[in-house]
Amino acid sequence: MMKLNANQLNFSGGPGALPESVLQQLHTAMLCVPEVGLSILGISHRSEWFAQVVHELEDNIRHLMGLPASTRVLMMQGGATQQFSMLPMNLLRNGQSADYIHSGYWSGKAIHEAEKSGKLQLAWSGKSDQFARLPTDAELQLSAQAAYFHYISNETVEGLQFHRVPGREDVPRICDMSSDLLSAPGAFNRYAMIYAHAQKNIGPAGVTLVILRDDFLSCLPSDLPGFINYHAQADAHSIYNTPPVFAIYSVLLVTRWLRDEIGGLHNIAKRNQQKADCLYQAIDNHADFYRGRAAVADRSNMNVVFNLPNAEIEQAFLQAAHQAGFSGLNGHRSIGGIRASIYNGLEVAAAEQLADFMQTFSKRYKPSRSHTVGLLPAFA
Amino acid sequence: MMKLNANQLNFSGGPGALPESVLQQLHTAMLCVPEVGLSILGISHRSEWFAQVVHELEDNIRHLMGLPASTRVLMMQGGATQQFSMLPMNLLRNGQSADYIHSGYWSGKAIHEAEKSGKLQLAWSGKSDQFARLPTDAELQLSAQAAYFHYISNETVEGLQFHRVPGREDVPRICDMSSDLLSAPGAFNRYAMIYAHAQKNIGPAGVTLVILRDDFLSCLPSDLPGFINYHAQADAHSIYNTPPVFAIYSVLLVTRWLRDEIGGLHNIAKRNQQKADCLYQAIDNHADFYRGRAAVADRSNMNVVFNLPNAEIEQAFLQAAHQAGFSGLNGHRSIGGIRASIYNGLEVAAAEQLADFMQTFSKRYKPSRSHTVGLLPAFA
Repeated sequence: MMKLNANQLNFSGGPGALPESVLQQLHTAMLCVPEVGLSILGISHRSEWFAQVVHELEDNIRHLMGLPASTRVLMMQGGATQQFSMLPMNLLRNGQSADYIHSGYWSGKAIHEAEKSGKLQLAWSGKSDQFARLPTDAELQLSAQAAYFHYISNETVEGLQFHRVPGREDVPRICDMSSDLLSAPGAFNRYAMIYAHAQKNIGPAGVTLVILRDDFLSCLPSDLPGFINYHAQADAHSIYNTPPVFAIYSVLLVTRWLRDEIGGLHNIAKRNQQKADCLYQAIDNHADFYRGRAAVADRSNMNVVFNLPNAEIEQAFLQAAHQAGFSGLNGHRSIGGIRASIYNGLEVAAAEQLADFMQTFSKRYKPSRSHTVGLLPAFA
Repeated sequence: MMKLNANQLNFSGGPGALPESVLQQLHTAMLCVPEVGLSILGISHRSEWFAQVVHELEDNIRHLMGLPASTRVLMMQGGATQQFSMLPMNLLRNGQSADYIHSGYWSGKAIHEAEKSGKLQLAWSGKSDQFARLPTDAELQLSAQAAYFHYISNETVEGLQFHRVPGREDVPRICDMSSDLLSAPGAFNRYAMIYAHAQKNIGPAGVTLVILRDDFLSCLPSDLPGFINYHAQADAHSIYNTPPVFAIYSVLLVTRWLRDEIGGLHNIAKRNQQKADCLYQAIDNHADFYRGRAAVADRSNMNVVFNLPNAEIEQAFLQAAHQAGFSGLNGHRSIGGIRASIYNGLEVAAAEQLADFMQTFSKRYKPSRSHTVGLLPAFA
C-alpha cells in the first residue's frame, strides 16, 4: 500500500490538504524562489516577477475552465464572506431584489450577510428538510426581474452538491463555488460571476478568486471605494493595493499542478469521483452502521458527510481514526457527525485507506445494546 | 565582515525582509508545524491550536506595546486600504466630519479612499513643499468637533516620520502605523485606534493588525456587514470567517522573535536607530553626492530616501548595488530616486554594508561635467 504522510491523510473541511508537490515548492520558496533568489515573503508585489505570476495565474484559470480571454480573473481578500456583502453593495443599491437559494449552512450565511445590504427573495429553502437535499428545478421560484440569482454549488457542511446548473438564462447567475471550483469541468460560461475562496481546492486561506464576465462587469458601479470596487480590482489586475503575495503564488502553483501534473479539470474530476465513489461505497456497504447525510442524487464529491449509530460511537470512530493517522474528520461544529473532505489535493490512496478503515471499524466494532464507548478497548 | 544572504540584503519598501529565524521556522512549518504534525496550510482555523495562536498573538502585541488587557487586537484582511474606507463607513455615517493630515503619498491615498465614504477636513497638507517635511503642531488645524483625527506615522514613499504624537486629546486619534508599528516603543495608549498592515515590520502581506481601545470600540456601529464590522471581528477574535492562517502564524513568530530574541521594542528601536544613523551619516558625509529627501528633523528610521546627482547616476547606483548583492533599493515609482527600507527584519550589518557601498560608490564614481553613465565602466 502507498505510504502517505500526515499531510496526505488530512481530510479537513478547510483549510484543506494541498498537493504534496505544491507544498514542496512552497517549502523551497519560503527561503528562496528559484528564479528570483529571495524568499517569497520578501518579494515586492510591484516586481516584474509578480506581475508575471498574476498574468500566468489569470491565464491558467481561464485555460483550465475553458473561458474566453475577455473573462476577468481577480484575486481578492476577505474570503467568500466579503463577496456575500459586496454583491448587494454593488448590485442592489437602487432597491432591486435578488433571488437566493438557501440550501445549507453556507448559503444561510450568504443570505444573512447580504440581507444587511439589500433586498432578497428566497428562491427555495431546504430548512424544513434539515438541508438533506437540494431543490428540483420545478421547486425554484425565480423572478425575471431579479438583479441576480445566487446559489452555492457545494454545501461543505451538509455534503450537498448541485450536479447541474440551476437558474434562468435571462438573469445574471452568480455562484459561490468556494468548495468545488477547479474540482471538475463545468459550463462556466453560463455564469455572470463565480467566486471561491482558495482554501479548499485552490490554495491556502487568504485569497479569493472572483471570475467575472466582461459584460457583467461593465454593469457594475465604478464609484465605490476601491476595496469593494470590482472595476478597480480588475483594472489593477488584483494589485490595487498590496495583495497577499504568498497566497497568490501558492494558487499559481496549484493551477500549474492541475495543468501539468494532473492534465486539466477532466482528469481531476475523474480522480475526485474515484475518491467519492469509494467512500460512499463504504457507507452504503454498511448501511446498518453508516448513514450518509445527503440525498443520494445530491451527494457531494467534495464532502462526504455521514453519521454513525450515535454520538459516542462517532467519538470512538474519530479517536480510532486519529490513532490510525487520519485527521480533520470531525463534522462541522453546527451539526456534528463525521465529514471526510476529499478536495483536489487529496490522493485517491488516502480515500481508499479511509474506506478500508471504515470497513474494519464497522466490522471490529461490536456494539452492545447501549452502544457505549466502554466496549471499545479491543479496537486499536 | 558578517556574511549575509540575499534575503538579509533586501531593502525592499514592502513586502519587506523578515528575520532569518522567522523564515527558518516558516520553512519548517510549510511541511510540518512541530506541535501539530501538519503543514501550516492544512491546519483548520477552528482548531484549538489556532485559537492559541491568536490568543498568544493578541497577548504578545499588548505586552510589546504596553497596552492594557482591555485593548482589542484584531487581525483583518484587505490591507490598510480597507481601513482607509472602513473608518468613514463606521464613523462618518451621520454626516460628521474627520480631520486628516496629508503628509505624503499614503496619507493622500487614505484621504482619496475615505472621501468616497464621508466628509473630511484637511488639518494640514505638505503638497506645496513636495512632501519634504511634516507639520509643526502650530500648523495643524484641528477641530474639537471632528469624529476623529487621522494621520500616518511614517510616510514610506517620502521617508518622513513623526517623532511625536500630534492631535488633540479630546478627539479620537487614529493612526496608520503600517510602516513603523512594532519598530519602536510609543505612547500607544493615547490612540483610539492604530492599524498596520503586516508587510513591513510585522509579517507577510495578507494580514492587517487593528488595535482598538475598548471605549472607542463601544462607540462604533454594530449593524454593519461582518467584513466591515469591528464588533463582529473583535467578538470572534479575528475568526469571524476563515482568516489568513499562514499570515497570522507568521506574525505570531515575529512577535515571539521581538519578545524573546530581541527583548522588546526598546531594543528593536536601538537597532533600528543604528541602521538609520549609519545610512543618514553616509548621506551627510557625502552631501555633494547624496541628497536626503526629508527635512532632517522628520527623517524616517524606516525608509531612508535620497537622490544622487541625476537619474542616470541613480540607475548606475542601482545597477552596481544589485551586482553587490543588495536588492529593493529603487525609490517608489511615484518619485523615483533611491529608497533603503530598513524594517525590523533587517540586520544592522546589512545597513553597515550598504553605507560602505555608498561611500565606495561616491568615491570611485568620478563624474565628468556631463554626469553620464558612460564613465562608469571603471566601477565594479
